[in-house]
Amino acid sequence: MSKVKQIQARQPKGFQDYLPRIQIARQKLIQKVQECFEFFGFDPLETPGVEQFEILVSDPDEFDARIYRTGSWSSADDQEALLQDTKTALRFDLTVPLARVVAMNLDLPKPFYRYQKGQVWRGEQPQAGRYREFTQFDIDIVGSASLNADVEIMQVIMFTLMKILGEKSFTVSFNSRKILNGLPGLLGFPDSEREDRITDVMRILDKADKVSREEMIGSLQAPRDDGDNKKSPELSQDQIEKLFSFTDLTGSPDELLVQAEKILGNVPIAQEGIQDLKRIISLLDEQGIDRDLWCVDLMLARGLGYYTGAVFEARLDDLPGMGSVFSGGRYDNLIGRFCKEQVPATGASIGIDRLVAALIELGKLENIETQTKVMIINMSEELTGVYFTIAKGCRERGISTRVYPDSHKIKRQFKYANKLGIPFLVIVGSNELEVGKFSVKDMRSGDQIECEMTLLTIGEKVAEQILTMI
Amino acid sequence: MSKVKQIQARQPKGFQDYLPRIQIARQKLIQKVQECFEFFGFDPLETPGVEQFEILVSDPDEFDARIYRTGSWSSADDQEALLQDTKTALRFDLTVPLARVVAMNLDLPKPFYRYQKGQVWRGEQPQAGRYREFTQFDIDIVGSASLNADVEIMQVIMFTLMKILGEKSFTVSFNSRKILNGLPGLLGFPDSEREDRITDVMRILDKADKVSREEMIGSLQAPRDDGDNKKSPELSQDQIEKLFSFTDLTGSPDELLVQAEKILGNVPIAQEGIQDLKRIISLLDEQGIDRDLWCVDLMLARGLGYYTGAVFEARLDDLPGMGSVFSGGRYDNLIGRFCKEQVPATGASIGIDRLVAALIELGKLENIETQTKVMIINMSEELTGVYFTIAKGCRERGISTRVYPDSHKIKRQFKYANKLGIPFLVIVGSNELEVGKFSVKDMRSGDQIECEMTLLTIGEKVAEQILTMI
Repeated sequence: MSKVKQIQARQPKGFQDYLPRIQIARQKLIQKVQECFEFFGFDPLETPGVEQFEILVSDPDEFDARIYRTGSWSSADDQEALLQDTKTALRFDLTVPLARVVAMNLDLPKPFYRYQKGQVWRGEQPQAGRYREFTQFDIDIVGSASLNADVEIMQVIMFTLMKILGEKSFTVSFNSRKILNGLPGLLGFPDSEREDRITDVMRILDKADKVSREEMIGSLQAPRDDGDNKKSPELSQDQIEKLFSFTDLTGSPDELLVQAEKILGNVPIAQEGIQDLKRIISLLDEQGIDRDLWCVDLMLARGLGYYTGAVFEARLDDLPGMGSVFSGGRYDNLIGRFCKEQVPATGASIGIDRLVAALIELGKLENIETQTKVMIINMSEELTGVYFTIAKGCRERGISTRVYPDSHKIKRQFKYANKLGIPFLVIVGSNELEVGKFSVKDMRSGDQIECEMTLLTIGEKVAEQILTMI
Repeated sequence: MSKVKQIQARQPKGFQDYLPRIQIARQKLIQKVQECFEFFGFDPLETPGVEQFEILVSDPDEFDARIYRTGSWSSADDQEALLQDTKTALRFDLTVPLARVVAMNLDLPKPFYRYQKGQVWRGEQPQAGRYREFTQFDIDIVGSASLNADVEIMQVIMFTLMKILGEKSFTVSFNSRKILNGLPGLLGFPDSEREDRITDVMRILDKADKVSREEMIGSLQAPRDDGDNKKSPELSQDQIEKLFSFTDLTGSPDELLVQAEKILGNVPIAQEGIQDLKRIISLLDEQGIDRDLWCVDLMLARGLGYYTGAVFEARLDDLPGMGSVFSGGRYDNLIGRFCKEQVPATGASIGIDRLVAALIELGKLENIETQTKVMIINMSEELTGVYFTIAKGCRERGISTRVYPDSHKIKRQFKYANKLGIPFLVIVGSNELEVGKFSVKDMRSGDQIECEMTLLTIGEKVAEQILTMI
């Protein structure tokens, strides 16, 4: 041991620990989310944190420079060995691994309803609230192209957030990517360029709430090849006006869609998207879901990636700047990257760590140091067997119980229980034992109750007494 | 999309997916383990999968070549960039991260009772039942040097395995590293070499159940420097006889300790270990714990690493060859690697994946395709709103319910439910709806029950009906 040098204890930058005070509440939150997902018929899947590098980078444009590669090594100094085995990397989401699993198991009965929770890693610049490792909890319905599946996902989002927040303090925005895909038609892009240029338009629209109108116009009309990686769609004044006639639409969901139909009704794909949104609205209304809980956002794009139809995201009304806490959409082409079959899919992901951060900020996260309900004071090393027997009785009745392991001064043991907020202390010394008694102290009220017992039944007796007090 | 080339779907070698059929049961197992740990007063901690490389390799001898390093990169081809940022690696256990956390948070009230579940990674050669990523679930008591803490850990092991296995089909072996640390005294090693040579003896003893007696003798008497990395202790014939007089001891726990005392009683550290074992035995006996559940194994070393006192491991009686499923020990010097304070600690780790593999082999793992209890047959696209309303009623009563999203042929929907084993189907067509009726089909018995309802209460009615049938 003497040879080992002392190492400074720290986490890598951008990584964090969850000590019990937060983890107790965080874990209960995850459990509640899981229950909600199970009510909707989703079943669990688990996949490794490590994936083939090529599986993750099949869409290299989107995640460049942010994937963590992994490698094994022969010795700390042998970097050659490291280089030879970096064909794997840490997953950056749970959707690509799901697509891989579905492609590998095409015989899974479909629609396949799965949930998955797990850590994901991204090599982002660490900043407040943004970490390099975080926990996501996803639901997806794989193998149905029906809009009903999208509506189910939206319902899970609303149901789950209601259960977690306990009130209507969030809004789910939704849109159809098909409407946005109709914009090249509106703008009259030539066929050969429509795919590229709409991607460029959407990338700029996606930043609508982050940049000024002037900056957006600047980006939209900039020359197409300006040497930068990201190309501009190079819109004319007329095209920009047409675009804004659409993006500036306001009004109730029904009004929005009437107006959108006027502008985009002649573009078939957009018309399809508008009908999809109408159908979603009527299904939500039919169930009597409060219109305060959702809104149509015709600008919602949810990134560039793999979405092909409905997209949705939930924000907290009290923390809109925090971004979405539960979001997703339909991605009918992703699974086809990994197999010959094209399998439609839709889903959403709840950002557990962001939600925890939000609940802390809103003062809504439980904040306890321990879940332990009972601590047995260690009055004498000789009575340890008795203490263990008492603890056994409590534990078998489901009461979380510690036996203080050291025969420290009673005062120190009380201080410890007090600091942790353990509500009940069991006190049995040799004297008490001799006369067949034990005491339970309620640390919340200060009351101390003396009870009778025989040694044979002490565990049961203590447990019974505590169950009357909890 | 057309530009994206198709990638072969596969996991990296040594990594595995858990599809719902196993993951449902695996997750319930983890939940049960967690409940047991909570009964004993342990609270949750979570730490990142990625740690500083130097934290993990502070004991390089033990884990060389098996740590997964991680690195971010600027582009797929830019391997220079990768090399510059490999100061992090994936954790190989949950104990070293705990030690780091304790060293960073010295104000945590002690004894600190924590549990942690999570994946760990080791660059092992993949083979049957041995994976490069697996899930561990650890408990540790940090900050108590008392033997009582070790006994608590042993009690958690027995309590948890009883709950999981439902019967006494396991055995917990235990020992004290202090006894083994007394062997240099028995063998008369010179002071300057005792630490090195006992390490060498223990490495060889640790393989006792894997090699023949002849091979062991060969290893023990081989010349000390044979060019290999691993040194031999170079024992004489006399020393080997003394060693075997100890390692060959048999008998009841009490007999073993009487004999061990005869052989090692004059070596103070060994004498301390023998007294520790006697105390553990008396504490287990005092609570009336069945002696069939445990045994003393004076050869048990549990690897070379950081153990300093009691060590213990549980094996399944029906699968002894599988190795230990729940093991650990006292490690009083590990936390001191990361801070100036020396903090004693003891704990154990349950190998979730190994246990799952064992339960599968023993035919004791539940095997269902889905947890979904109800599926609502999609008879008509127009009735989707009704179906969602029914589902809502069921979900709000805690019944896991799917609405089949596509209006496929009824036969196909029945086949799907049957394949997954969903027990109840709800059948509502336009005709039924008109006359205020719905049907529930029990797929287990084949019975179909027709019920009356009004549209307003359909969700509640269906849920009520199903709750009487579950």
